[in-house]
Formats: sequence, structure tokens, C-alpha cells
Amino acid sequence: MILQGMLRSTMGWTLPEGPYHEVVLASRVRLARNLSAAPFPGRAQPAALRKVRDQVFAAARRTCLKDAAYLQVDALDSVDRRLLAERHLISPALAQSRGPGGAVIDPRECLNLMINEEDHLRLAALAPGLDLRRAAHEADALDDDIARNLDFAFRPDWGYLTACPTNLGTGMRASALVHLPGLGLAGFINKLLENLPRAGLIARGLYGEGTKVMGDFFQISNATGLGRTDAELVAAVEKAVEELARREQDCRQKLAAGAQRARLEDTVYRAAGCLTSARLLPFAEACHHLSALRMGLSLGWPVPGDLGTINELMILAQPAHLAMRSGKAVTAEEQAVLRAALVRERLGAK
Amino acid sequence: MILQGMLRSTMGWTLPEGPYHEVVLASRVRLARNLSAAPFPGRAQPAALRKVRDQVFAAARRTCLKDAAYLQVDALDSVDRRLLAERHLISPALAQSRGPGGAVIDPRECLNLMINEEDHLRLAALAPGLDLRRAAHEADALDDDIARNLDFAFRPDWGYLTACPTNLGTGMRASALVHLPGLGLAGFINKLLENLPRAGLIARGLYGEGTKVMGDFFQISNATGLGRTDAELVAAVEKAVEELARREQDCRQKLAAGAQRARLEDTVYRAAGCLTSARLLPFAEACHHLSALRMGLSLGWPVPGDLGTINELMILAQPAHLAMRSGKAVTAEEQAVLRAALVRERLGAK
Repeated sequence: MILQGMLRSTMGWTLPEGPYHEVVLASRVRLARNLSAAPFPGRAQPAALRKVRDQVFAAARRTCLKDAAYLQVDALDSVDRRLLAERHLISPALAQSRGPGGAVIDPRECLNLMINEEDHLRLAALAPGLDLRRAAHEADALDDDIARNLDFAFRPDWGYLTACPTNLGTGMRASALVHLPGLGLAGFINKLLENLPRAGLIARGLYGEGTKVMGDFFQISNATGLGRTDAELVAAVEKAVEELARREQDCRQKLAAGAQRARLEDTVYRAAGCLTSARLLPFAEACHHLSALRMGLSLGWPVPGDLGTINELMILAQPAHLAMRSGKAVTAEEQAVLRAALVRERLGAK
Repeated sequence: MILQGMLRSTMGWTLPEGPYHEVVLASRVRLARNLSAAPFPGRAQPAALRKVRDQVFAAARRTCLKDAAYLQVDALDSVDRRLLAERHLISPALAQSRGPGGAVIDPRECLNLMINEEDHLRLAALAPGLDLRRAAHEADALDDDIARNLDFAFRPDWGYLTACPTNLGTGMRASALVHLPGLGLAGFINKLLENLPRAGLIARGLYGEGTKVMGDFFQISNATGLGRTDAELVAAVEKAVEELARREQDCRQKLAAGAQRARLEDTVYRAAGCLTSARLLPFAEACHHLSALRMGLSLGWPVPGDLGTINELMILAQPAHLAMRSGKAVTAEEQAVLRAALVRERLGAK
């Protein structure tokens, strides 16, 4: 465990600011790039991948990431790796990989590189709230900077070459981490999510592809990057998420004003009661109640905590974060005790 | 609804006092009696039963019950009747009966008569805690007093004659309302309850025969009154309940000191969180959480409320009490709202 410092660092993208931040926690733009001189990670030898990592690290040090943390993922223990995955800085797949993966992370965690996962390089920029243009602008600027010292695989007819064809073209994925408890309670969520593919969008769980939905938090992103420009993709996702956010806000107000108000109050205040009283708190339950609390806060109800604290707790209450906090491996029951204590403390419970 | 005053009266038997009151809420001795001049209620005409009621009322007015409430159950509306049943002053069966039932209730509700249920007269004395001797003494004194002006059906060889043969003999049932959450959590409860019949005892739910167990509250009583004296029966029940109370206390201490402490704390503090936060609270859930809270209080843990408040809430949070409080019939959902508000208020929640 060498990443203790991260427990105290501010994750810039969890701040409760930016457009529609009561519904949209964060916006993220990531670019997939590969070096033309090496095979894709799935087909390359470890030595070649170590060389890729060295080259990317060297190129990154000549950009705005010069003060960032440079991590060799294969040199980290499992708590450090899982911590990075819990913070969305590397994928769960890279956290489990034995290959020479890498991560470059700026101090506010709003810019980061992931090296030798599915592609040689995944470059990501995050911004709080719904602000994909800002995230895209920062990702592009870093991409331009780093490209000065790296030779990316690119064909004029196909665009950037990537390991998975869904990333071919711009290599870009624009996504928003959204919180849709109102649409969930009102029973509209499945219908809305089913319609996303028609707009070229997909919805995933909290940790991306193949992860489950917890606490009504979803990642909404473009399905593919082929055939459209970066700007078109960003605009399309931003427009769709803005529409979703408006519907969510509308839905929350209607629930709070309608015949179901007593049920909504019951859900929200019970969530507050549970979070401030439990002594054993599983993560899925914490997510579920933090989601309800977040909704209560957005309605201006007198519940403990604030949006920033809840956004942060969604990260800090995860297993590797709790293990890091206690400085040792912990059992599931110990985790549940530590999580309950952390949540009570952050929510100001006695 | 004419019994609103009862919402504010003190139920003497719910006070947190008397031996073992942390485990034994109350002790109760009831005597079954029938007038020799009339058939048992199951076989008598309404006119005969009205005469029985008049005779019992007249006899009771010449005892220490002269300041009691004298109620004709068939003249009460359904809220009043159910209120009496919820306070254990009449049986659920009498509350539903159309016959000329009666109830005589002293202001502290520690002495009462139920008229024309299964027997012409059921005379009951209650005391807080485990104090069956006191209850028996008060029941006997009232029985002697009232017998001066009534002719009870009695045969020297069989004893008092009763509608059901299990009451034949002394006509007495000594019971204790016990709270056994520790034995429940530790998994010993079923075994202990199964062994009660060997000691001539039976366990029932909160409202007596045929009612279900909620929140680990049980009524323990002698199975039959034939062949033993009043004093022997009272001593046998008191001894068995004392043994049960000691085991329960022992079990609570062991749970609080053992490896399961975190689970126990979680249960108790979550119960407190739920009771002080819920906006919709079904009765069974309220019982369940009040039971856990009561256990936490008995362990000296810093949870809201006190034993007296919890004992009282077990009565006041019931449906007819909530209807009485709001002055009108209420739906199940309205009840849940009123119950949640009452519990929050009594537990001093914001």
C-alpha cells in the first residue's frame, strides 16, 4: 500500500458544481490511442508493452502532467490497484491484469492516462457536473501535447486505430455519470434507458462495461466513435444527458408534490436514519441510501450531509478505500464496520 | 368514539418498575367466574346476559371499583371496542361480539372486569414487572369483595365452573408479558418455549390465545387451573418466568460482550434510526424495532427513549389508538403516517 495519500486528496470531479450537478455527478471524455510501432496490448509481449509504457511516461512528463503521479500498475499490491479502480482511474480489468500496465494521474484526478489496458493509451479528462465540452477541450489539449512526442496509429480513412472496433475513428468516448432516482422511483427508467441506443447512446453501471447498477447511478455514453467528429459526439451526448437531467429534475419535483410524497419522504428519511445509525453497512446498501439522501438534498429537505460529501462517500466507502484507511487487509465484516463508522462520521452523526 | 380520555390516562401496568421489569413488562392474574343463576354466555339469551351484566355492574359498584368506568361494549362503536382490546381490557373476541358484553375499568387500568365473554365474568389484576403475588393478592381481594353480592357457580369437588374445562377449578390464569429479544437473537427461544408445557405452562402472542408473536413479546401462563391451589399456580408461573428472565438477562449480557456485539449494535442502532426517521411505519415493524430499542436501553446503550415510553408506545401505536387520536377512521397508509409521527415525537426525534 503506497497510495495512502489519495485518501486525503480532493477528487476535482466529485465537487458539487457545474451545470445540472444535482443530477450529473461528472462528465468524462476519454480518447483511445495506440502507438504505431507496437502490437495492440492483447497481442504484444511484455517487453514491448514495458517499452510502450516508458514511451508514454516520457511523453507525458513533457505535458501539463509533469507533476502527476506515475504508477507501474504491476508493481502495486492489490489494495493499491483496487483503490485506483474504485476511483475510476484504471479499469477493473487493468487492476486485475499481470501485464505491465501504467497510470498517470494529475493531483486533482481530473486528467489521467491508463497505459496498456485494451489499448496502449487511454487518455481521460473529467469535469464536475454536465460539462462535456470542458472535458473534451482538456482531453484534446492533452492529446495534442502528448502526440508531439508519440506516433499514434492512424489511418486517414478509418481514423485512430483501436483494439476494439467500437472505438475506431475518433477513439473518443464521451460519458456522463448520472443519478436518476426520481425516474427510477416513478418507474420511467427502463423505458428511457431502452431508448438510448436509438440516439447512439448506451447506459452502463457505475464502473463501466459489465458492471451493475447501484443506487440509480448510471454512466451514459456514446456507443461508437466511427463516422462522426469529436464535436458531434460530444454535442450529441451532452444534449441527450441534458434532456435526461431535465426529466429527472421534473420527476423529482412531481414526486415531491404528488400523492406519493409520504412514500418519498419515508424513503429519504429512512435512508438518513440508516446511514447515521447502522454499525454494519454493506456497500450496495450504502449506495442505495446515499442515492435517496442525495435526492432529498436536491429537494432541499433537512437531511444530514451535502452533495459533495455524498459524491465523495460513494468513492471512499468502497472496499479498497476502507482497507487503505485501516492500513491492512480487512474482512467483509470489518469493512462493513469501517464503512458504517466512516459514513456516520462524514454525515455528522453522533 | 367516547373513550378519547384513555389516550391520556396512565396505564399503571406499563410503568417500568417491579422485579425484572427489563424483561417482564407486566404480571396479570385473572379469575374466571360464572353466576349460578344463568347459563354460560355461549348458551344464554341476550336478555339473560343483559341481566348478568346489570348484576355484575351493581356488585362491582360496591367494591373498590366504585370509581371505575362502566362500559356496555355493545353500545360502543368499533374504534372504542378495538381500543379496549388493544389495551388488553377486553379480548379481541368480545370486541367483535354483538352480544351484551361489559367492561369495568379502574382509572389506572390495573383492575378490570370483562363481562359476558366466554364466561359471565373475567376479573383481572395487573402489576408492572414480575409480581404475580401482588396481582394475585389484588385479584383475590376484589373477588372476595364482589362475591359478597354475587352467587358464583361452584362445586366443592370441581371448584369454580367455567365454560372451558381448562379454566375449571381455581378459574385462575396467572400470566406474565415477557420480552425475550436476547433469547430470540441467540436462537434459544424455540427450545425454551417448547419446554414450557412440561412445567404446565404455555406461551402465546401479545394478545393472548391465537395471536401472533411480534417483537419477541410473549405471554407466558399456566395451562390449566385444575388440581392445584391458586397459590401453587402463582408460585409455579412466577418461578418459571423468573428463570426465563434470568436466562434472558444472561443472554443479553453475553451477546453484548461476545463476538456478535457488532451485529447486536447494528440491530439496535438501526432500529433507533428507523423509528426516529420513518415517515410510514407499519405496526409489525414498529414492534420489531421497539423490541430492539428496548434491549439496547436495558444494556445501558445511548439510544433514544426509555422503557416506560417504549412500553406505552407498544399500546399507543396500535390502529384504533391512532384512529382515536385523529378523531376519525383512518386508512392503513394514514395509520402508518400517524404512527411514524407519534413514535418520532415520543422518542424526541426532530
